[in-house]
Amino acid sequence: MSEKKHIFNAKHVAIIGLGLIGGSVARGIYRAGFRGELVGAVENEADVKRALTLGLVDACHTDIASAVGQADLIVVAVPPAALAEVLAQIAAHAPRDAIITDTGSSKQSVVALAQAHLADRLAYFVPGHPIAGTENQGLDAGFNTLFDGRRVILTPSQDTAASALDCVVGLWKELGASVIEMDAAHHDDVLAATSHLPHVLAYTLVDTLAALSERQEIFAFAAGGFADFTRIASSDARLWRDIVVANRGPVLDVLDTYIERLARIRSAIADDDHDTIDGVFGRAKAARDEYGADRRESAS
Amino acid sequence: MSEKKHIFNAKHVAIIGLGLIGGSVARGIYRAGFRGELVGAVENEADVKRALTLGLVDACHTDIASAVGQADLIVVAVPPAALAEVLAQIAAHAPRDAIITDTGSSKQSVVALAQAHLADRLAYFVPGHPIAGTENQGLDAGFNTLFDGRRVILTPSQDTAASALDCVVGLWKELGASVIEMDAAHHDDVLAATSHLPHVLAYTLVDTLAALSERQEIFAFAAGGFADFTRIASSDARLWRDIVVANRGPVLDVLDTYIERLARIRSAIADDDHDTIDGVFGRAKAARDEYGADRRESAS
Repeated sequence: MSEKKHIFNAKHVAIIGLGLIGGSVARGIYRAGFRGELVGAVENEADVKRALTLGLVDACHTDIASAVGQADLIVVAVPPAALAEVLAQIAAHAPRDAIITDTGSSKQSVVALAQAHLADRLAYFVPGHPIAGTENQGLDAGFNTLFDGRRVILTPSQDTAASALDCVVGLWKELGASVIEMDAAHHDDVLAATSHLPHVLAYTLVDTLAALSERQEIFAFAAGGFADFTRIASSDARLWRDIVVANRGPVLDVLDTYIERLARIRSAIADDDHDTIDGVFGRAKAARDEYGADRRESAS
Repeated sequence: MSEKKHIFNAKHVAIIGLGLIGGSVARGIYRAGFRGELVGAVENEADVKRALTLGLVDACHTDIASAVGQADLIVVAVPPAALAEVLAQIAAHAPRDAIITDTGSSKQSVVALAQAHLADRLAYFVPGHPIAGTENQGLDAGFNTLFDGRRVILTPSQDTAASALDCVVGLWKELGASVIEMDAAHHDDVLAATSHLPHVLAYTLVDTLAALSERQEIFAFAAGGFADFTRIASSDARLWRDIVVANRGPVLDVLDTYIERLARIRSAIADDDHDTIDGVFGRAKAARDEYGADRRESAS
């Protein structure tokens, strides 16, 4: 523990990746009154300049070694494809007792990478996933209220040190989020259903419609419901490919269940089977209304 | 043509059904400065009271005969299941030269009903569909700007009188919408893709997730993307069953195409086939971004 009053008890925080999530963490850390040094790592010199222009961090580097050399706390917010290399660099250059957390959308794949690359630092690694985001990306996409009232799932294991877990819980609370702990496998099942599957469905729908001969008219006559329904298809395509592949097992499980149920409703429509259609639509409306009511409650 | 200045050249306008669409037509007609008599028809006395309390119409009835007895223009905004009976009542009680239009989401089924029930009035019947809506329903759901900047599709046939078409075009322009004419079959293909299919997918998704053992957590950990993606699953379930059934052929065609493409992306995820996933996700993102840009342009 530091004697000076430093939020999160850290003097040096490093954020690897300053896109929507990493950039929002940086903005949120400043909003919370952090007075230590905030250091970023980004991919190229143009992003270094942009990060400093935006005031996202106190210092910014393209090499991870420079970014993490003095870090007490390291937040990794890079796409899944970059994670292995980033963890290897952290293992090589960060102080031995630096606390490390990530923000990835699938957790079993992250745990496997951590076991491979952070073998002797597993006690200080806390896998994490903030349930927050928008369809935007890049250094300009973040904002300091992204995590307000949102949930963050942490998936510590029996290896995780209590002090490391406390530090990461403290970070997210300062950023305005509430923290829930669960098993990595359970996390992956839940997120496959609520996030990864909807992205697969939305991308596939927009691609299907774009291939139809009426393409121009289809998009011209789409109303507000379509805009909402397909908004997530504007998300970073490469990132979402990586997420879906990283969480392949749970995604395929829930996708198969969905395909089966879609075949059932297809038959019901073909057979004019009102009872089955009413069952599906009615149960869905009830569940969605209940969910909407919960959201409004928790927002108030 | 009336000599007095009456918006839409009508002195007596009747609106059958005062839910989201009919109620918004009523509110929009007043906003446009209509000085004739606006008469509504609703299902029961409670709705009559509510309609008058809200000031939706000048007079309101539960029987269609009373509502349409003097009408120059009749707007039918009832669920598909009620349409046949409403058209039969109009045929029996409206003035011979009353212009009739509807707001239904599928047009070939409406044309078939009109041929059955309005046989000797087909010249005065203009099938219509405003591409506008929200997930809400009921007499309180409408608002007088619902059609501002929206598109309305009319599907006149060779039977349609030019004067009737002009009148209905005038109505929608006064309500703030732009009007496009197309073939009923073409309308049904386009709407199956942009509206009916997304509703089927959203209802099926929410019902699928609600049936999973992790149901509570799934909804608890759903983020903003999920809320947007599933909003249309809060739409009136019975209404959407009727729409999907009424437009069965086009809905099944586009649903089958979608199921085929979903099976393809499923295989690509299972096989770690990045090229196929990147193709689908990338094309979808490009199309959705383009669509989003168009929407922002047309809104400005």
